[in-house]
Amino acid sequence: MAPPDFDEAFRERLHELFVWRRDVHHFRSETVPDEVIERLVRIASLAPSVGFSQPWRFVRVDDPARRKSVIDSFERANADALSAYDGTDAQKYAGLKLAGLREAPVHLAVYCDQETPSGKGLGRRTMPETLAYSAANAVLAFWLAARAENIGVGLVSILEPALVTQALDVPPAWQLITYLCVGYPQEVNDQPDLLRAGWESRDPRATTIIRR
Amino acid sequence: MAPPDFDEAFRERLHELFVWRRDVHHFRSETVPDEVIERLVRIASLAPSVGFSQPWRFVRVDDPARRKSVIDSFERANADALSAYDGTDAQKYAGLKLAGLREAPVHLAVYCDQETPSGKGLGRRTMPETLAYSAANAVLAFWLAARAENIGVGLVSILEPALVTQALDVPPAWQLITYLCVGYPQEVNDQPDLLRAGWESRDPRATTIIRR
Repeated sequence: MAPPDFDEAFRERLHELFVWRRDVHHFRSETVPDEVIERLVRIASLAPSVGFSQPWRFVRVDDPARRKSVIDSFERANADALSAYDGTDAQKYAGLKLAGLREAPVHLAVYCDQETPSGKGLGRRTMPETLAYSAANAVLAFWLAARAENIGVGLVSILEPALVTQALDVPPAWQLITYLCVGYPQEVNDQPDLLRAGWESRDPRATTIIRR
Repeated sequence: MAPPDFDEAFRERLHELFVWRRDVHHFRSETVPDEVIERLVRIASLAPSVGFSQPWRFVRVDDPARRKSVIDSFERANADALSAYDGTDAQKYAGLKLAGLREAPVHLAVYCDQETPSGKGLGRRTMPETLAYSAANAVLAFWLAARAENIGVGLVSILEPALVTQALDVPPAWQLITYLCVGYPQEVNDQPDLLRAGWESRDPRATTIIRR
């Protein structure tokens, strides 16, 4: 395979991909074909991983009872989160749509297998947390590949991880990284929802290079 | 700004980007212009973050004494890691080049600000670890954008994080996510080094979709 020669036109499109990637919580009803999800998982598995450990595990959740357990967990955790805000923040929080669990045609839980022998522990002796970061990277790879197919992805982290893991009946050594809602988005946008809703603005510290 | 229409040609190039992204430890000597690093950090800051918290902090390390502290830390941690392997694994490990800290023209430590007020805690009450995952996502965004400019990035996690943080004199609430070596690569490849070196093979569990 000849090495690719990435040009300025590609870099501009890649920049657009980053700009127009969104955390999607409003989905259209039509489903995403199975083979598309399978392709996105294969692309996700090209993500970097510490010591080539490839610790991500994708769990597709279709069973209505299991989905209900996840939705119930979100609703409890979300109500609890709301109760921690006061005044304007509480009003704003109550108006945010933070998950599309009921509408999304595809549910994918992403786990990190903390006991995988793959990679033989290389690179994570002093920083074992890099194993979970590797699984988080597979999530972003999935997300970018999905956006390039005009498929929306929404991450749900307002969940009780132990209860979700129990509801999905996966090994206890698997650590929940996030829960993905996947489907065709109702709209596309180049600005984060939380920015448009006035919840948070761009943080200049995120683009500041500190010199040492 | 009109929404982009990502087409099959772009998706093929994006797939090549994932396939040809590598963890680079062999660098050419010429440096990367400052404005390129600044652009890559701006693109990285388009990464998704929990509650729009944008917790990543980029620390560029040029001071020779600080760099030496990092290199010393790597060498200690790497020797310690080697001593944990036996037989063939020890032989193989000893032959791997796991960091290009001496050759890389640009050193960038990436931190997660665990005390950032940005995002007001949204989305991370039950899963606070998602803040670090957000910073890890900025690393992957930086990496992909760099590869699209034919710039190599190598991650170093074989480090003593507390000592590195002390050497770089950053706030104690900042958590080291990884340490990046950045520069032009000596070669490009479509297969991971650790696969080519026979350290680890592709794990079929990484591409298996489990059904629930």
